Amino acid sequence: MKVVKFGGSSLATGAQFEKVLNIVISDPKRKFVVVSAPGKRFAQDIKVTDLLIECAEKTLNGEDNRELVETVIERYQKIADELKLSLEFIQELHSNLSELLNRDTTNKNRFLDAVKASGEDMNAKLVAEFFQSRGIDAAYVSPKDAGLLVSEETGNAQVLPESYERLYALRKLPGIIIFPGFFGYTKNGEVATFSRSGSDITGAILANGVKAELYENFTDVDAVYSANPNIVHNPAAIRELTYREMRELSYAGFSVFHDEALIPAFRAGISVNVKNTNNPTAPGTKIVHMRDNTNGPVVGIASDKGFCSIYVSKYLMNREVGFGRKLLSILEDYGMSYEHTPSGIDDISIILRQSQMDRYTEQDILTRIKNELSADEVKIEHNLALIMLVGEEMKQNVGTAARAAKALANAGVNIEMINQGSSEVSMMFGVKEENERIAVKAIYDEFFAVVPV
Amino acid sequence: MKVVKFGGSSLATGAQFEKVLNIVISDPKRKFVVVSAPGKRFAQDIKVTDLLIECAEKTLNGEDNRELVETVIERYQKIADELKLSLEFIQELHSNLSELLNRDTTNKNRFLDAVKASGEDMNAKLVAEFFQSRGIDAAYVSPKDAGLLVSEETGNAQVLPESYERLYALRKLPGIIIFPGFFGYTKNGEVATFSRSGSDITGAILANGVKAELYENFTDVDAVYSANPNIVHNPAAIRELTYREMRELSYAGFSVFHDEALIPAFRAGISVNVKNTNNPTAPGTKIVHMRDNTNGPVVGIASDKGFCSIYVSKYLMNREVGFGRKLLSILEDYGMSYEHTPSGIDDISIILRQSQMDRYTEQDILTRIKNELSADEVKIEHNLALIMLVGEEMKQNVGTAARAAKALANAGVNIEMINQGSSEVSMMFGVKEENERIAVKAIYDEFFAVVPV
Repeated sequence: MKVVKFGGSSLATGAQFEKVLNIVISDPKRKFVVVSAPGKRFAQDIKVTDLLIECAEKTLNGEDNRELVETVIERYQKIADELKLSLEFIQELHSNLSELLNRDTTNKNRFLDAVKASGEDMNAKLVAEFFQSRGIDAAYVSPKDAGLLVSEETGNAQVLPESYERLYALRKLPGIIIFPGFFGYTKNGEVATFSRSGSDITGAILANGVKAELYENFTDVDAVYSANPNIVHNPAAIRELTYREMRELSYAGFSVFHDEALIPAFRAGISVNVKNTNNPTAPGTKIVHMRDNTNGPVVGIASDKGFCSIYVSKYLMNREVGFGRKLLSILEDYGMSYEHTPSGIDDISIILRQSQMDRYTEQDILTRIKNELSADEVKIEHNLALIMLVGEEMKQNVGTAARAAKALANAGVNIEMINQGSSEVSMMFGVKEENERIAVKAIYDEFFAVVPV
Repeated sequence: MKVVKFGGSSLATGAQFEKVLNIVISDPKRKFVVVSAPGKRFAQDIKVTDLLIECAEKTLNGEDNRELVETVIERYQKIADELKLSLEFIQELHSNLSELLNRDTTNKNRFLDAVKASGEDMNAKLVAEFFQSRGIDAAYVSPKDAGLLVSEETGNAQVLPESYERLYALRKLPGIIIFPGFFGYTKNGEVATFSRSGSDITGAILANGVKAELYENFTDVDAVYSANPNIVHNPAAIRELTYREMRELSYAGFSVFHDEALIPAFRAGISVNVKNTNNPTAPGTKIVHMRDNTNGPVVGIASDKGFCSIYVSKYLMNREVGFGRKLLSILEDYGMSYEHTPSGIDDISIILRQSQMDRYTEQDILTRIKNELSADEVKIEHNLALIMLVGEEMKQNVGTAARAAKALANAGVNIEMINQGSSEVSMMFGVKEENERIAVKAIYDEFFAVVPV
């Protein structure tokens, strides 16, 4: 039994719906189908979810929402037309949405969540209608009926543990189950949405609940790539990735999906197969609990910009018990999180995302550090990029750091920082932002380039 | 005008006294001579200072100290005999010491400090007596008369700022000034000693006070070496070293002298020349404020054992504002200092000297981290060595990290940790203790080995 999730671009047109149907029926194990709201059909298109958010906001502001409602319904209408589905079905969606928009708006966040979630809900109903029209035994199941209970946090709901047991009962239902992604119900029976990547989360929860043998996540790329295709031309596809590797890659610039979305599946030991709706025979990337270390020490290279480094030096710092703690307390006062703290004997640097601070806050922090810690010198360096090399076994692999550092040196890139030794699956280099691309390319070539014969 | 300091081994025998005299008179700028107590004449010998400490402790315990007093005086007697100095002079030292040992012992630390300091004081008087016997215009000056005022901390006295101005007046004295190292006087007129390397400290204070053009520190090695001679056979001598480089090298295993001892000279911008009493024509090592970067990126390699690493992992750690601060607070509760904190996304390691914790404390700390921070995993790895590469310009030198890491890889050494990026003059590698020697050798060979022609 498999859970199959289709993203927005996989369900944006009638033609895409046809592909989805073919994928689902080509494997009888694909019993649970989680769907997103219709996504973009072309680069400048607007996702249905974004239309709905605008619509809800207009409504909350007392503005005329009718044009937006029409635009939303038109999206479903077009798909239905392409698939030759009945007009009555779309009329029902329309009246449901209008009814929803006329509800009480006292709790704005609740209202917004309910409207946002309707994009997935309508699409799930449409997919079920379409499957049935082709004579397939398929049925829409509401998260409410299925017992997918979530916390009260609108826009960031967390699944409640008792959901899993309830979802297990779905196994007994006949045929194919079409399930809307992105939301669940609170104990009070109200809709609450997950964070971004919400349909991925629903798929992972469902996979856990029904104890699926595999969670197939269909999107619009053939695989997770070993480097950012915007930086490296035609990077190698990753066949297998462990959860830990996925997590480290997600952290810095890998955007296939947010790793946290997959946690419910990982917790149950269920593998996730990332596949392409538009090329379903491609093997995709499998995210597993453990893998054979057959790909060399590095499985992927991620990078991210926008970091800065606060340098603090004070003579005899390393003797001063409590210095580091006091320094971090100052950052904490501003609610700031930091990434790394490389240190020398008399100095320490704090690497953090610079978007957390405006200039005023920055100056404030530097002044406090200087005064409260009697630091000899405090300075800040902006515009750093972090480059992360990820791979299980990295820690035990003699020479990986040397190869990476050599590649950077040969490319003329100065290493501003190396952080290696805590994570067992990653190694990090800090470089100036202007060197990010050349650095990633150099490391990619070192570990992935096929030597011409 | 130069301040010249001679260590204990340079003043252990009459023959050494002759060398010292020749060195001093060979350069008319050598006006201020700071002396240690007589040191070891051979490997199994006992330093006079250690004899005096034993003597003071016996006295405090009410035991018979006469034999030890004789042993101490005999050391000076032998030197005086070799140099054919008058017997009356030694008799005076003897009666002075006996008088000192009969003083009030209510304040044990004060008593101990006064007895310890007498080793340098007697030796300074002996050097002055010897110089005068050779017709040289030389005089002993007491730190009390000179106005070398220090704080009340016995055994760890700190110079008081007003001393410098008073010491400046010594410039007006005629002839060569012989000054005992290791101690000063409190405002109450009591002797208080500096920490270990106390004569180095006196020399640095005096150099600052009299605004010397150079502080020559005579010891028994030709130079500061670029690596530990016990690990690397015949390592290269360092000609010039900056203060910062010296400090970083001192931190990990370099024992020529403790860098903090030189601070008073550094603060005044005075260079320090480490030279060999037994080979005074060798250029020695000059410790300067700035140097030309002519030696390649690495000037020295230091290493030290006895570190451990506490590994803490917790999912989503990097989102948790305050996590690092709370972790360091736990260490602070035990009064422990730490060296470095390399980190991943969901993990952080704390590198610290393992001698700070017994097994019980260690278990206690691990348990507290696990419970109070709800960590997923907490573990400790013992017996790590830190290897430090030191050199100005290191931060701007593309490829240094690559060369070092490559050398370690070629030697089959796994790198447990790299910490680079905060200090501008050093780079640190963590390896298992069993790999320390091979790692230092490999890095030395990479940066210092002369390629055979």
